[in-house]
Amino acid sequence: MHLSSTLNILGFLMMFLAAAMLLPVPFSLYYGDSDYLALIMSAFLTFFAGFAAFRFSRFRGDLRAKEGFAVVALGWLFFSLFGSIPFVLSGYIPSFTDAFFETVSGFTTTGATILTNIESLPHGLLFWRSLTHWIGGMGIIVLSLAILPFLGVGGMQLFKAEVPGPVADKLTPRIAETAKILWGVYLVFTLVQTGLLMLGGMSLFESLCHAFGTLATGGYSTRNASIGAYASGFIDYVVILFMILAGTNFALHYRFLRGDFKVYLRNQEFLFFLAIIGLATFFIGLDTFLHSRQPVFKVFRDTLFQVASIITTTGYATADYEHWSSGSQVILFFLMFVGGCAGSTGGGMKVIRIFVLTKFVFSEIVRLLHPHAVVPVRIGSTTVNREVLSNILGFSVLYIFIFALGVFVMAMLGLDIASAFGAVAATLGNVGPGLGSVGPMDNYAHIPFLGKWLLSFLMLLGRLEVFTVVILFSPAFWQK
Amino acid sequence: MHLSSTLNILGFLMMFLAAAMLLPVPFSLYYGDSDYLALIMSAFLTFFAGFAAFRFSRFRGDLRAKEGFAVVALGWLFFSLFGSIPFVLSGYIPSFTDAFFETVSGFTTTGATILTNIESLPHGLLFWRSLTHWIGGMGIIVLSLAILPFLGVGGMQLFKAEVPGPVADKLTPRIAETAKILWGVYLVFTLVQTGLLMLGGMSLFESLCHAFGTLATGGYSTRNASIGAYASGFIDYVVILFMILAGTNFALHYRFLRGDFKVYLRNQEFLFFLAIIGLATFFIGLDTFLHSRQPVFKVFRDTLFQVASIITTTGYATADYEHWSSGSQVILFFLMFVGGCAGSTGGGMKVIRIFVLTKFVFSEIVRLLHPHAVVPVRIGSTTVNREVLSNILGFSVLYIFIFALGVFVMAMLGLDIASAFGAVAATLGNVGPGLGSVGPMDNYAHIPFLGKWLLSFLMLLGRLEVFTVVILFSPAFWQK
Repeated sequence: MHLSSTLNILGFLMMFLAAAMLLPVPFSLYYGDSDYLALIMSAFLTFFAGFAAFRFSRFRGDLRAKEGFAVVALGWLFFSLFGSIPFVLSGYIPSFTDAFFETVSGFTTTGATILTNIESLPHGLLFWRSLTHWIGGMGIIVLSLAILPFLGVGGMQLFKAEVPGPVADKLTPRIAETAKILWGVYLVFTLVQTGLLMLGGMSLFESLCHAFGTLATGGYSTRNASIGAYASGFIDYVVILFMILAGTNFALHYRFLRGDFKVYLRNQEFLFFLAIIGLATFFIGLDTFLHSRQPVFKVFRDTLFQVASIITTTGYATADYEHWSSGSQVILFFLMFVGGCAGSTGGGMKVIRIFVLTKFVFSEIVRLLHPHAVVPVRIGSTTVNREVLSNILGFSVLYIFIFALGVFVMAMLGLDIASAFGAVAATLGNVGPGLGSVGPMDNYAHIPFLGKWLLSFLMLLGRLEVFTVVILFSPAFWQK
Repeated sequence: MHLSSTLNILGFLMMFLAAAMLLPVPFSLYYGDSDYLALIMSAFLTFFAGFAAFRFSRFRGDLRAKEGFAVVALGWLFFSLFGSIPFVLSGYIPSFTDAFFETVSGFTTTGATILTNIESLPHGLLFWRSLTHWIGGMGIIVLSLAILPFLGVGGMQLFKAEVPGPVADKLTPRIAETAKILWGVYLVFTLVQTGLLMLGGMSLFESLCHAFGTLATGGYSTRNASIGAYASGFIDYVVILFMILAGTNFALHYRFLRGDFKVYLRNQEFLFFLAIIGLATFFIGLDTFLHSRQPVFKVFRDTLFQVASIITTTGYATADYEHWSSGSQVILFFLMFVGGCAGSTGGGMKVIRIFVLTKFVFSEIVRLLHPHAVVPVRIGSTTVNREVLSNILGFSVLYIFIFALGVFVMAMLGLDIASAFGAVAATLGNVGPGLGSVGPMDNYAHIPFLGKWLLSFLMLLGRLEVFTVVILFSPAFWQK
């Protein structure tokens, strides 16, 4: 691996991070808070470190797969390390472990928090916290639509035929082009949602923070009660809509905005995604309706919100689903594994993988009856080739193994069974809130020291499609 | 499918079942119980039904894969239906749902019980209950070593090279030969364990019942406190030894008894199996030792017993692991998925599949770094071919999907999360005791009506390696 090239790119990216740290300063000054000092100092430190790394390394222009993996994994790590400085310097999150957890959770668009009272934070830090989501989301879009397909990871290989345009033949090699186009879509959606939230009565500050959290499928709110604090049907439905848009392949949005209005209906993954949301909402809604005596429209709104929030791995809440029946909680738990569509900012295993796994099982059943037949796995008119299928299966097995190992360690550290399952599923899947003691109205403050580091690692693993991180630990990676 | 041939074989098998129902009669008479009447009547009914089916059908001598699947699945179903008659007729389990659950649990060697007071049953029924395990175990050995490889299901295809002898080239087509040889091993082990348990102080009746439950990895006891009722270190270690033997490929035992004393050490699956038992015992033992103040030898004995009992899917208990830490419970929960070795009477996903999945993940990581390399999955010196690998992956995905679906339904029926996870893992894996309200010192009596039928179905699914049952529901199976 060429360490020098890797360092060069990382240094370049960190100078951008430093600039981003200055964006919350106007809000801090406007609201008369004093946290702008910590932000400015952090920006200075980060810029200096980035500049040094950039200056004393050289880009050799021969980026191979190995450097690609290293830039991605170390990029997220370095952003989280430096991004946590404002929290520590300001004194609002004095423990480095906690500050790192909070920042990883931000950049990985997880939204799991260690804060027990979010509203006690000054506005500059709150804005920075939400901004880490938005920056993380930008990273994810480029990662999943431009970098990972090139590295042979992720489900996007499947879309070459399905989604002509920025992903396929023309733009894949040109990461910068793809990024510009898709960030345009991301920015437009963010501005539209911000406007709508302001119409719903939120301030500009709150609207921006929540739009950042929605489009990145992050879930950090400026309120302790999350979106529930606003008790507004209009706001709920705006957030639902944009959570679902954020959980959808951004390449589809690009095609749509270019005038191909039926692109969503042709996309099998998107239709499967909607079907899961519909089914989950139906079962949980029915269950909640029979158990509570609330009006059906209120039940529908709350159910759809929580379903969309969990499957897209956003993690916003308008209701405490821990008071729902265990059946409803189990559905939400499994949705944490499904996650968003490939090419979205959502986490989890991704809808396309679950879809391919389902098709694969059926093909195996047919093959048992016709042992000598060739039974391909098809998604729409595309045949999933052997290498991609193998990659999806390998990913899924590894995901479940890491989940099991994570639950084992968390339980050993003293979490009860439901909380251990919930905490690991919610961090590995980049959801945020889990079950038990880490539910939607709880937080991660009480998790033991070692547990916070493990969960931070799981957030990175999940966000970077597991393989990207795991590969760094393989001896073959470091061989010349 | 040739229904006539299928019915012919089933009728033949049921006449054997009828004969087996008479075996408990001497014990009933010896202990002066009155349940012998119910047993004799049931035997008569079963024999009549079997004879009718046999007489009015014709074996056409052209058994293909389809008939094979049907005989296996319907065989277990019919045995469970008719095997439950003694419980109903005697009035000890008046509900047919309960009686069927108890009998399916017996024949699938699960050992999950709906009885709240086992010791209130007369001796004839207790013996019959344990005998269903032993008969089920006989079925499993033939199924996994002779029938399933022929049908292309199960992990045993991998062993052709590793275990020459009854499995491979010579004997595979001759099911009857294989059965005779392996049943010989099964019988010898049963007799030796019975003798050892009598040495430990059990009566002949209890020794036989517990040997049946051990060798079949079933878990039905004649005591409410299971093996713990005897509070004997000697009995504990005898049961541990035979649980592990029962969880091992019987083809290995055959080779061993024929004089190949190093056969176990050459078998990668067996070594992996021992390694898991060792690691699990170490972690749980350490955890329990640190939390309790019991002497280390007692902790080791209890831990090893529970680990061996769960991984082999026997389900006997000497300690209530629900009082152990959540970390220890999580380990036991995951062991329910591992299960015994292929070709053993153990359930679960089977050690070999977990082993192959692990190797597969590593091969995928290597392939990411060398995209054009061919990276085969090897077990020892054997390369796992593509079809077998595909089959193992398909099985694993389907197993997890069915698990998730089962948990969803059980939770919807009102079980709390831990109990739903435990009940489904323990029945699908043919373990018996689960977590929460269906733990080792609890029972399944409180499960709602629909839940009992679902769990009964899961026991059959798990026992018949899922595909064997699922295939019966595929339209292709019924096409001409």
